[in-house]
Amino acid sequence: MKLESLRTAVCDANRRLVEERLVTLTWGNVSGIDREAGLIAIKPSGVDYARLTPGAVVLVDMEGAVVDSDGRPSCDTPTHLELYRRFPQAGGVTHTHSPKATAFAQARREIPCLGTTHADHFTGPVPCTRPLTAEEVANDYELNTGRVIAERFEGDPGLDPATTPGVLVAGHAPFAWGVGVEASVDNAVAMEACAAMALDTAAVTGTPRESASLEAYVLDKHHQRKHGPSAYYGQPGGQHA
Amino acid sequence: MKLESLRTAVCDANRRLVEERLVTLTWGNVSGIDREAGLIAIKPSGVDYARLTPGAVVLVDMEGAVVDSDGRPSCDTPTHLELYRRFPQAGGVTHTHSPKATAFAQARREIPCLGTTHADHFTGPVPCTRPLTAEEVANDYELNTGRVIAERFEGDPGLDPATTPGVLVAGHAPFAWGVGVEASVDNAVAMEACAAMALDTAAVTGTPRESASLEAYVLDKHHQRKHGPSAYYGQPGGQHA
Amino acid sequence: MKLESLRTAVCDANRRLVEERLVTLTWGNVSGIDREAGLIAIKPSGVDYARLTPGAVVLVDMEGAVVDSDGRPSCDTPTHLELYRRFPQAGGVTHTHSPKATAFAQARREIPCLGTTHADHFTGPVPCTRPLTAEEVANDYELNTGRVIAERFEGDPGLDPATTPGVLVAGHAPFAWGVGVEASVDNAVAMEACAAMALDTAAVTGTPRESASLEAYVLDKHHQRKHGPSAYYGQPGGQHA
Amino acid sequence: MKLESLRTAVCDANRRLVEERLVTLTWGNVSGIDREAGLIAIKPSGVDYARLTPGAVVLVDMEGAVVDSDGRPSCDTPTHLELYRRFPQAGGVTHTHSPKATAFAQARREIPCLGTTHADHFTGPVPCTRPLTAEEVANDYELNTGRVIAERFEGDPGLDPATTPGVLVAGHAPFAWGVGVEASVDNAVAMEACAAMALDTAAVTGTPRESASLEAYVLDKHHQRKHGPSAYYGQPGGQHA
Repeated sequence: MKLESLRTAVCDANRRLVEERLVTLTWGNVSGIDREAGLIAIKPSGVDYARLTPGAVVLVDMEGAVVDSDGRPSCDTPTHLELYRRFPQAGGVTHTHSPKATAFAQARREIPCLGTTHADHFTGPVPCTRPLTAEEVANDYELNTGRVIAERFEGDPGLDPATTPGVLVAGHAPFAWGVGVEASVDNAVAMEACAAMALDTAAVTGTPRESASLEAYVLDKHHQRKHGPSAYYGQPGGQHA
Repeated sequence: MKLESLRTAVCDANRRLVEERLVTLTWGNVSGIDREAGLIAIKPSGVDYARLTPGAVVLVDMEGAVVDSDGRPSCDTPTHLELYRRFPQAGGVTHTHSPKATAFAQARREIPCLGTTHADHFTGPVPCTRPLTAEEVANDYELNTGRVIAERFEGDPGLDPATTPGVLVAGHAPFAWGVGVEASVDNAVAMEACAAMALDTAAVTGTPRESASLEAYVLDKHHQRKHGPSAYYGQPGGQHA
Repeated sequence: MKLESLRTAVCDANRRLVEERLVTLTWGNVSGIDREAGLIAIKPSGVDYARLTPGAVVLVDMEGAVVDSDGRPSCDTPTHLELYRRFPQAGGVTHTHSPKATAFAQARREIPCLGTTHADHFTGPVPCTRPLTAEEVANDYELNTGRVIAERFEGDPGLDPATTPGVLVAGHAPFAWGVGVEASVDNAVAMEACAAMALDTAAVTGTPRESASLEAYVLDKHHQRKHGPSAYYGQPGGQHA
Repeated sequence: MKLESLRTAVCDANRRLVEERLVTLTWGNVSGIDREAGLIAIKPSGVDYARLTPGAVVLVDMEGAVVDSDGRPSCDTPTHLELYRRFPQAGGVTHTHSPKATAFAQARREIPCLGTTHADHFTGPVPCTRPLTAEEVANDYELNTGRVIAERFEGDPGLDPATTPGVLVAGHAPFAWGVGVEASVDNAVAMEACAAMALDTAAVTGTPRESASLEAYVLDKHHQRKHGPSAYYGQPGGQHA
């Protein structure tokens, strides 16, 4: 029963990628995890969002073996699994090629934190990984994609996947996560919107993007009022990404 | 009865933010005031626009106390209240993070008046506030946001909130107002469109934005034909933003 | 009967402005002329496109007097009338503040002809008028707007309103025309698309827009295959803008 | 019967151009080939996509003669025919004036390969042809358009139409092809998305587009996992563009 509702949430979240204009063709996939059961539910590979049903969502165990399904899971499944293993707070993972965030990934630059919109979701720049080596691409490419993401966070004391729930893979595209499936999509939506505004902010100033970084005390205030212990955004008892 | 129609207008105006593509996720809120009753009606915090009903709109008195509702009002309510207190002509207030206007806010630059589209709604540049201090953010952040907006207008003899019905909060996003609820959304729509065109105008000329400022006599003509005592835009007896 | 079908065509064309994403709020109007009757049909001022009906379209004679209607015509009516008087081949006129063409108008620069898409509709750059003087704005502003457009064409032997069916008014916005009502909207659509592509072309090259002008022999070929005496675009007997 | 399903596929693919926002007005056409019958099915010229039916799709033999139809085929038909003759692997051809790819065509620059999104569809930059000469434009213009495309591929040992299924015609617009009708539209969609992201990537870096080219080993990996002999993207037995 619980797995059924996870499948439905994952199906809905994948379809939402289209409504939020985060995907072109089939370039994106969302997964969710049931940590108790040790299973993740993920989009099947190469299937149109419009044809996706909860029953077509693929269940996979933590080693990537398909459980009870005829479909093949997204070929990005090993990346999702590595993120769930390394980031224990993640309940959902969203991968897209959303255009503005992907432009930063292709430029191999972080998305700077220039305003409160960004601060509401990420407590600082959205970081960018190092490029994968030829060896990392040749073998276990998708697993290694997850590893360079985790490496980026573990190697940087200023980065916490709980408060910076997203990353850019250099030369590739964004990944976002969240406490649940829907929250991971919210963070992917926010990352795309903030990337677009960061590009336009640089166009307004005509100077490097970093020059207009948000004051640390504003950043902290915005993140705390939405996500901190005394958060006052949203309805009492509500859940926010 | 009058409060019911205010609630309906505020509900409709909040839903219109989505149609006008001014909001992402739940990043925006509209309020309206009944000055006789001393009450404002405002969007509840963190609620999806698609699920919003007139009954869910929250009534708040001028001190911010919730009147007859189980919901929590937008956490930006103290900003709205301060604008109603300082700008007596405002009947509605719209706050969004619309992307192009927010890019100017993040760049901490005013939106220059480059054409008649802008002049139809704002008699000059849309100004930008100073950043809030650490103290202003630490205590009564949302109230202080309203205060720096009012300070920006009161400190500048060239600015009148009646003829410049909008502002950018530095590092944050735009606020707009108008004689009524719908007019405040119209001005938010116009600000976003003019911000987009100002960015593109600078891209066409390859020179600073300000270099193509509209002649003062055209600016005045356009604002007068729509809003002046001898206005001839619209149908006789009609209301315009 | 003929006037009724003109009213319907004008109503449909105004509503199409929304579908083609050429208008924000009520910033645009389309008219059509019945030259035999000496009447034009035009959008009423300040009316939402969604509420527009053929019966609400206003009939006006060549001096601008309203015929058989309770509504007030678009306040841009004197500009439309002047274009019909000066450009005898025009059967329809479309005025919008479409964002990319307006950016060129605000920059007071022509839209260069950089490709065959542009050449299919305009045999060269879309020109920009001079700014109106303070006197021209103070008295008969809308009529003088039509006059500076006509002046721009009459003073330039290389410009023919039949083959360059559009213009930018400096600091204001575009006007387009065509053999019929629908053709005038087609040309407004084409102008906006070509303005957008001209901006992006300059971004690709990083050099001034004019540097990639289309070869004259390609320009001529494209315009001729669609509009010339031996045109072979479209179905036999069909009408093209 | 087989021709009927080809007509339906071509009709659907042309209508999909609108959904994918690849076309403005009637600026685009898709065709498909039945190589056994020696016939292609193509959009009729100047017909609105919304009014298109399978029965209105025009059948043409390899010399361009219309077979069993009252309609006139797209005036770009000779270009499509030349592509089918020169590129034997092509089962479908899509021509649009999609705005971002057209901006590269107007700038007469290739679309660089800056990320895995691009590599999933094209094994390197999307090339740009030389301009046509005045002679090539004066006689058999559309046929010569196909010839300069084929010349661009045949003259470059690094280019294979099977793995680079698209091209920009200098000063004109993109053409894409694929193993089938739908695959050709997929490639046109991918080209437009990659052109948009290439423009934004250059805006992020502020340096020439080429500077962020994707590592060859990542490019190869992405193309192989989707199209190579051991492809593992999509469902077993599925077809991918």
